[in-house]
Amino acid sequence: MRQVLVVKSGGAAALPEWQAAFAACAPDLELRWWDDPTLDPAAVDFALVWDPEPGRLAQLPNLKVIFGSGAGVDAIIADPDLPRHLPLVRMGVEGAAQRMGEYACWAALSLLRGTRRLAIAQAEARWDYFEPDFTAREKVVGIMGLGVMGTRAAEMLGGIGFPVIGWSRTPKVLPGVESFAGDAARDAFLAKADILVVLLPATEATRGLIAAPLLARVKPGTGLIHAGRGSQAVVDDVLAALDSGQLGGAVIDVFEQEPLPADSPAWQHPRLTVTPHVASLPSRRERAAHVATCIAAFRRGDALPNLYDHGRGY
Amino acid sequence: MRQVLVVKSGGAAALPEWQAAFAACAPDLELRWWDDPTLDPAAVDFALVWDPEPGRLAQLPNLKVIFGSGAGVDAIIADPDLPRHLPLVRMGVEGAAQRMGEYACWAALSLLRGTRRLAIAQAEARWDYFEPDFTAREKVVGIMGLGVMGTRAAEMLGGIGFPVIGWSRTPKVLPGVESFAGDAARDAFLAKADILVVLLPATEATRGLIAAPLLARVKPGTGLIHAGRGSQAVVDDVLAALDSGQLGGAVIDVFEQEPLPADSPAWQHPRLTVTPHVASLPSRRERAAHVATCIAAFRRGDALPNLYDHGRGY
Repeated sequence: MRQVLVVKSGGAAALPEWQAAFAACAPDLELRWWDDPTLDPAAVDFALVWDPEPGRLAQLPNLKVIFGSGAGVDAIIADPDLPRHLPLVRMGVEGAAQRMGEYACWAALSLLRGTRRLAIAQAEARWDYFEPDFTAREKVVGIMGLGVMGTRAAEMLGGIGFPVIGWSRTPKVLPGVESFAGDAARDAFLAKADILVVLLPATEATRGLIAAPLLARVKPGTGLIHAGRGSQAVVDDVLAALDSGQLGGAVIDVFEQEPLPADSPAWQHPRLTVTPHVASLPSRRERAAHVATCIAAFRRGDALPNLYDHGRGY
Repeated sequence: MRQVLVVKSGGAAALPEWQAAFAACAPDLELRWWDDPTLDPAAVDFALVWDPEPGRLAQLPNLKVIFGSGAGVDAIIADPDLPRHLPLVRMGVEGAAQRMGEYACWAALSLLRGTRRLAIAQAEARWDYFEPDFTAREKVVGIMGLGVMGTRAAEMLGGIGFPVIGWSRTPKVLPGVESFAGDAARDAFLAKADILVVLLPATEATRGLIAAPLLARVKPGTGLIHAGRGSQAVVDDVLAALDSGQLGGAVIDVFEQEPLPADSPAWQHPRLTVTPHVASLPSRRERAAHVATCIAAFRRGDALPNLYDHGRGY
């Protein structure tokens, strides 16, 4: 009998794509949709989910492993009835780190070169020439969060020529990167960065962090790139900092409410680039391959990678 | 008596910025504007020009060195009366190569991640989520032109993870870059590239090169980045290739007619990003410092760098 993987990620329209991806890498798995009325809960072995309704995972009596379909699992651990004794595997494939690094590079260069202004000019068919002020070599990028993604982003940003510094909860040693650790070092870190890249995990300590108190500590004109989690930024405070000049520009990929409502003032700000949570998600093909590899390891009795730690909070 | 530098670059409005830049790095130079009616032609020692009216440089009897204010000098050598016996120094400062590399990285990541589509969605306040297909590791960037700028761009693109190949008039050896040289190797080069970066000098051989015959040789869906010279691309052919899908997307910085007219269809194409000739220009501060360094070398009798070669054509 084939083992069953139930999927809730990307909406029902994504099911054919998931099916094709798993058919290619794990033909022995039976793929079922989360809301399939003919699904027997007792038949489910594995779950691949982004935002399961609270209590639903607890109704799967033979569930063995929960896979998060993104790098963040906060929508999963928000479930008070989450079966916390089961392994929860975060999506941490190489493709996600590479993509996050690409996004960080694109966003940092976008801020450096004023491409939001250029995009607005293009929409108006207007040749808006302006002289560049600085190259990457003259702008320090400060990465908040030095996990797998922050580490890869640091390497790639350094390759473009940006001096890179980093801030993390615990001390990290990365070649060529001046590192700061813990709350006590945060203001010293902020005072050195010209462009901030937020890649922090969603924890109680990072909730609401990117708000007026922190923004008052950055250098005037700092660029902000936020590709962590939506719960971490207070968008109204970011907009106010852009208006006052405390922030010179921003690129934001994640929001408390997604999709970002059409009437949000964030869409229209002339120094804010909005992207729709695309920074780091690997393709379904890559994610299916990662899940298939983990399931094979689980069947062999091998350790699972990227396990969520309930004590640490990420 | 102070030596005189006459300037025609950036329009009359740029004069105060040039004056401030030269006052900081060459206070012994007298800076004069090209159209200053009180200027004695016989008093001019040096000229810093982008697009001098034909015949005007020949009317400066004591001119010693001509400096181009950009990397390309084609608007200068188009003058039939150009004093060809005088040294013509191209703007080739480190900042220009760094900036071109930054632009190439930004444009390549923009094509990889579909950011023109995202910019259109932002203008419409529309959350247009889509899944990424590939990372940089899976897309070969082919650089056309491996001079100072192409070489730096190759290093930076490689650091982001793109495999890089190159094509140039004469064979070049760059670490990690598969190189193709000459007309005979061009189609083999085009058949391997997923994203083309045009950084060629303006010569008779490159005029009109980016047009239907070449575009018929690229892989279907290729991305085009054009930051060479405006004379090299036939924009109507690029638009037709975007419409047919032969090109998957394009980022163009240089045009035959600049500013690009407001009624050009290029502004509106949903897969074309237009930028207003900003790819590689260093700041006036950097360019003034370069000119001041060259003038000091000239006074000492030292060789001048980045000389234009009338025989080679760049």
